[in-house]
Amino acid sequence: MLRQIQLNSSGKLNHLLSIEGVPKSIILNVLDRAKDFLKFNETISISKSNILSGKSIFNIFFENSTRTSTTFEIAARKLSADVINLNVGTSSTAKGESLLDTIDNLVAMRADMFVVRHSQSGASVLIAKHINEVAPHIHVMNAGDGSHAHPTQALLDVFTIQHFKGDISNLRIAIIGDIIHSRVARSDIQAFSLLGSPDIRVIGPRTLLPSCLSEIGVRGFTDLDQGLKDVDVIIVLRLQKERMKSTNLPSKQEYFKNYGLTLERLSNAKSDVIVLHPGPMNRGVEIDSHVADGPNSVILTQVTFGIAVRMAVMDILNNSKKNNG
Amino acid sequence: MLRQIQLNSSGKLNHLLSIEGVPKSIILNVLDRAKDFLKFNETISISKSNILSGKSIFNIFFENSTRTSTTFEIAARKLSADVINLNVGTSSTAKGESLLDTIDNLVAMRADMFVVRHSQSGASVLIAKHINEVAPHIHVMNAGDGSHAHPTQALLDVFTIQHFKGDISNLRIAIIGDIIHSRVARSDIQAFSLLGSPDIRVIGPRTLLPSCLSEIGVRGFTDLDQGLKDVDVIIVLRLQKERMKSTNLPSKQEYFKNYGLTLERLSNAKSDVIVLHPGPMNRGVEIDSHVADGPNSVILTQVTFGIAVRMAVMDILNNSKKNNG
Amino acid sequence: MLRQIQLNSSGKLNHLLSIEGVPKSIILNVLDRAKDFLKFNETISISKSNILSGKSIFNIFFENSTRTSTTFEIAARKLSADVINLNVGTSSTAKGESLLDTIDNLVAMRADMFVVRHSQSGASVLIAKHINEVAPHIHVMNAGDGSHAHPTQALLDVFTIQHFKGDISNLRIAIIGDIIHSRVARSDIQAFSLLGSPDIRVIGPRTLLPSCLSEIGVRGFTDLDQGLKDVDVIIVLRLQKERMKSTNLPSKQEYFKNYGLTLERLSNAKSDVIVLHPGPMNRGVEIDSHVADGPNSVILTQVTFGIAVRMAVMDILNNSKKNNG
Repeated sequence: MLRQIQLNSSGKLNHLLSIEGVPKSIILNVLDRAKDFLKFNETISISKSNILSGKSIFNIFFENSTRTSTTFEIAARKLSADVINLNVGTSSTAKGESLLDTIDNLVAMRADMFVVRHSQSGASVLIAKHINEVAPHIHVMNAGDGSHAHPTQALLDVFTIQHFKGDISNLRIAIIGDIIHSRVARSDIQAFSLLGSPDIRVIGPRTLLPSCLSEIGVRGFTDLDQGLKDVDVIIVLRLQKERMKSTNLPSKQEYFKNYGLTLERLSNAKSDVIVLHPGPMNRGVEIDSHVADGPNSVILTQVTFGIAVRMAVMDILNNSKKNNG
Repeated sequence: MLRQIQLNSSGKLNHLLSIEGVPKSIILNVLDRAKDFLKFNETISISKSNILSGKSIFNIFFENSTRTSTTFEIAARKLSADVINLNVGTSSTAKGESLLDTIDNLVAMRADMFVVRHSQSGASVLIAKHINEVAPHIHVMNAGDGSHAHPTQALLDVFTIQHFKGDISNLRIAIIGDIIHSRVARSDIQAFSLLGSPDIRVIGPRTLLPSCLSEIGVRGFTDLDQGLKDVDVIIVLRLQKERMKSTNLPSKQEYFKNYGLTLERLSNAKSDVIVLHPGPMNRGVEIDSHVADGPNSVILTQVTFGIAVRMAVMDILNNSKKNNG
Repeated sequence: MLRQIQLNSSGKLNHLLSIEGVPKSIILNVLDRAKDFLKFNETISISKSNILSGKSIFNIFFENSTRTSTTFEIAARKLSADVINLNVGTSSTAKGESLLDTIDNLVAMRADMFVVRHSQSGASVLIAKHINEVAPHIHVMNAGDGSHAHPTQALLDVFTIQHFKGDISNLRIAIIGDIIHSRVARSDIQAFSLLGSPDIRVIGPRTLLPSCLSEIGVRGFTDLDQGLKDVDVIIVLRLQKERMKSTNLPSKQEYFKNYGLTLERLSNAKSDVIVLHPGPMNRGVEIDSHVADGPNSVILTQVTFGIAVRMAVMDILNNSKKNNG
């Protein structure tokens, strides 16, 4: 079903809502295209292009997130699109308007692309289905919906991993934290599976691990040291304060003691392991500063690459109506 | 008085604050010009132009409204103006600065045009009078002030009606809802009168109807079925929650029972009646979803036309200093 | 120390954090350059230029200020830069992220210049030191940090004073208000001293005057009439409501009685005295409307000049890597 919604009749990417349902060839195409938007000088910088000149992109955030909203805005503007920022959380929905009425109104304002973040899982799918009925020329990018999916985060994670470590089909990858509620974990696992990682592990308190791990080809660990054994890549998730209650963890300190990534814990992994984090970090909760700022951390490079990856997705969506290639 | 403030010494439109005081010829001119900014293909789209290139437009919202603010922003950017969005509600006025001090400061920042929304009736007039003294080169557009006026909404309503139903001088038009507090109703009635509608009706609970209806050439109805008899156009107003108290209506359900526009109620009107709503809608309060989403509804087309109409107003204000035409 | 941080190895301005530490020649250079961005017709207007085309400027406001944020945005856009507005106060820092983590993320988004406002004194210095380590190509402009510094306000005050009264080395200048907590007062005093004002006075309740006045070459007055005697320039500071408690003043009325600038008080100064205020004004608290709107007031001209001065600073920072001149 997610395949059918995201691809058009020619099999091209029409919306990006989830990694699930997107063919491997398109994922590879995005990763490849992202390279074109980067310049690798002393510092990695981002190119400017006219590809989306005259197009308008609406940045529709039902859930606040300056950081994510800004990276999408920068990506769109680097492609010369017009960007309209909409903080819808505080607006019409507060006046009791339904989600789809808000979307219909924004469709009537004639955008070419929607970037959508919403606190409800599946909101992006709901919106894209509706768009396919009322305005099939508009492309939808999911910038995170509830605990469902965050596909551009997964793509930038993959891009970062391949940049530093090469082909994912040779890599052991561990994700630490609140796996069950994390859209980043879900999308990451789907991407790593698709690209053939032979060993994907999730590590966290039992109450925060999914029950059906083997079905999705993932191994679960409640012991951090065991889980990190010989891995090439570690993704540390942010601990949401609101999750504390639902676990058996009495405090942040307790979480850090059991699952905080310190240099000592890191020594279980391969010596050239890289550490990723989707941000914003809780230092001293899920990650120690010596790791966050240490030589294995590629956390800030993720941010830069994230802009290029979002540019690539926008470009590929924009080309979905063309016949060539 | 409203005529004198809005027109310059050559009789051209210098500010748009209210439909009252604007000559019919200028209204027709705006409606005509709006057509130039639309392309009528499969879907109606909006053209891009360089008309306001180098000009800067300040979107000054003392009252929050993402939707209205966004349509003005899109209109200005489609004309290639620079747009500065100012959410003044949360800013200087919160620090106790007076309205005109805020305006003086924005004047000193050298805008060419102000779009102003304010919760106080007459705020736009106060501002325009002040602008005429201190910065006569700046044009003011009223984007809604209290229960006074919302002229661009009236213009887009007229544009929409004429697009679907032709000349207003042949049309029976009904407005349903809280007439007495509605700036949309006030501006709509003035526009429909000016353009010669032979039968303008307002429908609502007695406490929400103006007392001086006959003076303004309008007929009042407290019975919805009677009021809708044989009309060509229905405008449904949003019911503000805060008005519920001031009426004799105990609940939303009660309002819907008496004044909610259902398919059954709609059958009183002509079969090709069109239904408008300024948005955002309260489904199940003032309008039923079968009507809102039905074949008679032109609610979303209003939004698209609204951008073209606002572009037309901006263009005409910008030309007010020229001598030709 | 402030000199070393703000200048690069060629002695050019690399960051603008404070007036302290910036050589007089650079201050004069900014003032001179600002003139190029103004057109002195009937009304003073601001020129457009392509100097920063392709550059991106992040407007990072940890403390809300629509007015200041907007003038920086206008300045950047008049130079054709891309501007990204970040209201960080409500965002990541609310999620517990540290200041420098937020900065690191914004660095990773590849800006060329940061405009920073923060409620903590010294925040801009902390940020610039960090930037020098991690991203030396980025320039930092302090748009106000706690009670430390507000250098562009001081520069625009100087520019305004010189425009109306000529060389500062011939002028007596008085600043009225809460001197001890005011970043404007601090930066103004440093600028006036550097440019050789022979007589700088501060006037206010004893509890709001610094104790070490003579060290910084400034005379303190608790009596308004005495302090204003024969001055050429008066700068009236805004009284922050939150300061009322810390003084012996029981009320706004009491403050106005003792320190409010009325026409009568003004008559102590030279007849051609000019009156400045950084805004927003509390009329009837620190200034009477007859003065604010009177012929001696240059308060609104400050706002216009402020844009040109900020353009000049951006241009000079942008040129700091060049070898010529």
